[in-house]
Amino acid sequence: MTQKNRQWLLARRPHGMIQESDFSWREDSMPAVPDGHALVRVLWLSFDPTQRGWMEDRPSYLPPVQIGEPMRAGAVGQVIESRHPAVKPGELVQGLFGWQDYAVAPASMLAKVPAGVQPTHILGVLGVTGLTAYFGMLEIGKPKVGETVVVSGAAGATGSVAGQIAKIHGARVIGIAGGVEKCRWLTETAHFDAAVDYKADHVSKRLGELCPKGIDVLFENVGGEIFEASLDHLALRARIALCGGISQYNEAAPKGPRNFMNLVVQRAHLEGFIVLDYAPRFAEGMKQLSAWVTEGKIVHHEDVQHGLENAPKTLLRLFRGQNVGKQILQIAEPPLPRV
Amino acid sequence: MTQKNRQWLLARRPHGMIQESDFSWREDSMPAVPDGHALVRVLWLSFDPTQRGWMEDRPSYLPPVQIGEPMRAGAVGQVIESRHPAVKPGELVQGLFGWQDYAVAPASMLAKVPAGVQPTHILGVLGVTGLTAYFGMLEIGKPKVGETVVVSGAAGATGSVAGQIAKIHGARVIGIAGGVEKCRWLTETAHFDAAVDYKADHVSKRLGELCPKGIDVLFENVGGEIFEASLDHLALRARIALCGGISQYNEAAPKGPRNFMNLVVQRAHLEGFIVLDYAPRFAEGMKQLSAWVTEGKIVHHEDVQHGLENAPKTLLRLFRGQNVGKQILQIAEPPLPRV
Repeated sequence: MTQKNRQWLLARRPHGMIQESDFSWREDSMPAVPDGHALVRVLWLSFDPTQRGWMEDRPSYLPPVQIGEPMRAGAVGQVIESRHPAVKPGELVQGLFGWQDYAVAPASMLAKVPAGVQPTHILGVLGVTGLTAYFGMLEIGKPKVGETVVVSGAAGATGSVAGQIAKIHGARVIGIAGGVEKCRWLTETAHFDAAVDYKADHVSKRLGELCPKGIDVLFENVGGEIFEASLDHLALRARIALCGGISQYNEAAPKGPRNFMNLVVQRAHLEGFIVLDYAPRFAEGMKQLSAWVTEGKIVHHEDVQHGLENAPKTLLRLFRGQNVGKQILQIAEPPLPRV
Repeated sequence: MTQKNRQWLLARRPHGMIQESDFSWREDSMPAVPDGHALVRVLWLSFDPTQRGWMEDRPSYLPPVQIGEPMRAGAVGQVIESRHPAVKPGELVQGLFGWQDYAVAPASMLAKVPAGVQPTHILGVLGVTGLTAYFGMLEIGKPKVGETVVVSGAAGATGSVAGQIAKIHGARVIGIAGGVEKCRWLTETAHFDAAVDYKADHVSKRLGELCPKGIDVLFENVGGEIFEASLDHLALRARIALCGGISQYNEAAPKGPRNFMNLVVQRAHLEGFIVLDYAPRFAEGMKQLSAWVTEGKIVHHEDVQHGLENAPKTLLRLFRGQNVGKQILQIAEPPLPRV
């Protein structure tokens, strides 16, 4: 039997909303494993709004995915073959392995999944999304006891953790999410004080009712009209952790907030951030997040789909707001016992 | 002879661009002077983009001007009559006296124009506009030697001073202004390293050429497409002093910057500010600005129009970009010798 490496390649740059036809399927031969490298069987793919930006042909914090390359994605996999003494077959490792069955990477680029950690957690609550929430909320938002914190995209992997971190620090936390089910999950399970359903509520009006003294901290994931609704209610000297703007990523003509000048009137402090900048402190963040999860202070949800063939569809789930919590695609079972 | 107090009242709230008909002319009787108050003859009116916001019926950093009230404006006047021992006839004082010949104010609200200071300077380079430049540039922009600083609205009262302060601190300073004459003034007189003419140049393209390493500090006065052009070229960890957005103040449907997410990609720090927050440090700012003016390190220009009847027209000059430097309207000569 000749093994194949199934892959989804970026076929063309999307214009507006991602189409499944922006990707093409290829069954490639198995990659060679150069000295110092390892061959990884990809098991779980991470889906993150930031992937939309990687598909654009413009400078960003990572180079664009090139047409004809496998679509880039964070992933956890298992080492199948190693040509470096520090990496052993059977070990679970994390990296930007992409939408494919097998990846080859230099051993130095493989982050091992710590013993005792459930592998998918390293893509979510203990990984990039949880760490994004941790550093964005604590280093930029800096919530204080009794302050009002609003999180958009609150039922997502990052937003749900960001809100709970603010709650742990004594703030009153309001989440904005789409649909009754997500909102119920926020208030009944995820410790939020209140939730605004952007599909049913007038968001600005509802925020006005829920935040009579204004919003002290805004953790922004969504952009567009939902961002504008929050800017309507900033408290004096509000802090805004600008994490993302998923509502605009697929717009051919994205819009900025019309009421941007409220940032002047309220003397707001806004900071854009990328979690990678905090890499030297990831261990600290993971340790703390792990403790909060163990103590039940942070609950999280994984939305696990199955099958590499469903990768484009799974990415679309994010942009359609269909995921609750961390979106993951499992594409294989670990073939070797975990080391 | 019965003296009259000529006034321009706010007649209606503007929708979109200000119209002269948004104001109505009244010849009122002279105001009474209660105990503890002074009667002031208004001499010079200050024109500032922020006045557009005061005309709106929405919460801001000052309450809205009410329909039927004299239009609010910063001004310098001379005390004519005083019913408070700390204020003497003949003294030049500053306050929000508004578009009228005479104003009555409590003595505690009158800031005296310091001896030796040219009275109009207290409305411009040594007043609110100069102080806005001073605190916005130094407290938020924090330019360092060799950094690239961009100022929009660069030929205006605030922008021109902001750019020169950055220059004093060793930065390379590029101004954006409208028209050949303003741009020439920036580079030939006001110490700017380069100027972009938004009426003639493709602003983003030109900024790309002038800022090959990106913009480290942006002092933003304009908003709209000019702001977007600067956001196209932010350097990593750029600081943005968000002072205003004059291009959008008269838009019925103002727009935010479409490329707002560049703030995330470049991890930018943006702060909105109002100079009044720095009131406890105004003396420090005035002293420093005054020294720089004396040393020739800051040049400034006053655009002085004449006659109270021209107040609405003079306000429109600001929004049409017709002013170079500080827009002032002289409505009378000092009637008493200066004390």
